[in-house]
Amino acid sequence: MIRNTTQVRVRYAETDQMGIVYYGNYAQYFEVARVELLRGIGITYAFIEKNGIFMPVLNLNCQFHSPAYYDDLLLVEACITELPVTRIHITYSVHNTDGKLLTSGSTDLAFINQNTKRPVRCPEFILEKMRGYF
Amino acid sequence: MIRNTTQVRVRYAETDQMGIVYYGNYAQYFEVARVELLRGIGITYAFIEKNGIFMPVLNLNCQFHSPAYYDDLLLVEACITELPVTRIHITYSVHNTDGKLLTSGSTDLAFINQNTKRPVRCPEFILEKMRGYF
Amino acid sequence: MIRNTTQVRVRYAETDQMGIVYYGNYAQYFEVARVELLRGIGITYAFIEKNGIFMPVLNLNCQFHSPAYYDDLLLVEACITELPVTRIHITYSVHNTDGKLLTSGSTDLAFINQNTKRPVRCPEFILEKMRGYF
Amino acid sequence: MIRNTTQVRVRYAETDQMGIVYYGNYAQYFEVARVELLRGIGITYAFIEKNGIFMPVLNLNCQFHSPAYYDDLLLVEACITELPVTRIHITYSVHNTDGKLLTSGSTDLAFINQNTKRPVRCPEFILEKMRGYF
Repeated sequence: MIRNTTQVRVRYAETDQMGIVYYGNYAQYFEVARVELLRGIGITYAFIEKNGIFMPVLNLNCQFHSPAYYDDLLLVEACITELPVTRIHITYSVHNTDGKLLTSGSTDLAFINQNTKRPVRCPEFILEKMRGYF
Repeated sequence: MIRNTTQVRVRYAETDQMGIVYYGNYAQYFEVARVELLRGIGITYAFIEKNGIFMPVLNLNCQFHSPAYYDDLLLVEACITELPVTRIHITYSVHNTDGKLLTSGSTDLAFINQNTKRPVRCPEFILEKMRGYF
Repeated sequence: MIRNTTQVRVRYAETDQMGIVYYGNYAQYFEVARVELLRGIGITYAFIEKNGIFMPVLNLNCQFHSPAYYDDLLLVEACITELPVTRIHITYSVHNTDGKLLTSGSTDLAFINQNTKRPVRCPEFILEKMRGYF
Repeated sequence: MIRNTTQVRVRYAETDQMGIVYYGNYAQYFEVARVELLRGIGITYAFIEKNGIFMPVLNLNCQFHSPAYYDDLLLVEACITELPVTRIHITYSVHNTDGKLLTSGSTDLAFINQNTKRPVRCPEFILEKMRGYF
């Protein structure tokens, strides 16, 4: 398992007139969390793209348990429980600093060859950084 | 069943450096579609809020089948298949003008009393507009 | 002079907890207005990019006179008062349907050759569509 | 003078298909920088709102000198050069970690009484935190 927690401060721009974080903005928090998880094991997503791979999101699931508010410091955890093959499954949870679970979710991402635009298997340069965790 | 299709033009702001619509932006397209579905049966979401009800999103599911591109005119369909009780379930599909299915998804929304912050049943002024469709 | 007015419906996502449109979102409304102005004279921005030109924004000015609210139907006018040479100057005004001026602003955009990444003059295929208006 | 520099990591969501940060997103970076400047002198914007004051933006100016890219760590400086009276003037600069100036800009913000919706003078609880810097 690979697990990483990142802090995200809620921006005013991310609230809506209900006075809470707009539901669509959690997709960005999840993005930040998975990028920081990768950085934590020595891979930047920028490097993945420079090596000819795009990682588009295939699906997104979110459960909104409790709202996040302006200026909250959110703890966004990303977790990979299985070594990826043709896609990578990542789960997320968002807690506030009181330890309350606000949102949970998951995404699957593919590996796409930028030239052929075709799905490929998870590249070796990613797998070699991940193997030790499983 | 209540069904409505709305057109949304992809903004440059909504693309990312992969050259496609960023996955988090579909939540906004779904919002536009459900608001226009309600408007189509004679209810504005603004009116619902003026009547003391918030409708926060409880969960979101999206499957991204194929990318949407800059300046695409998207046909975003929202569909309600059951008369709401304590929550409203809405399904969505996004097609481009070639008829290709790009994204599908669903949301559940609650009804919250703005004063008590407690969930309530779907208000009668909404149900009376919906009953004829089921 | 070339002038065009586009309608934009305020999305819930675009409001903030002050209950008004977040100031940063007007940049998107301006984008929509200038893209529709171009479309109105027979040029799509997508076509400009396909012809090897990017048009990055060089500067942005906005005056926020009065707030826009959720679900407002905004009339966003874009106006080009001079035939572009090395940059294009566009002014904007946003009114609500009561005719109240909410926001005014301007942008300058450059023409960049996608291969050389260098600024170039406004391409002839754009100028030929614009000359008749000046 | 009050001056503060905040780090902001560019999110994938904030890029556009030109492969750079979309121009409208700098308004959010400016927001983050001014909020952190205030926090640095002991005021949170959340506290200002709890004390009955909104601070809407009156105008925004941005000059985009050079693009910011995905995953860049941006150094966003906010600076207040004069003690506010009826509005607060803030200037901003965005540099990358190579020390290159990417964007500069400014905003004016008003102080609005939440009950009366009328502009008021800068509240004493803000001024008392600022006086020592001028």
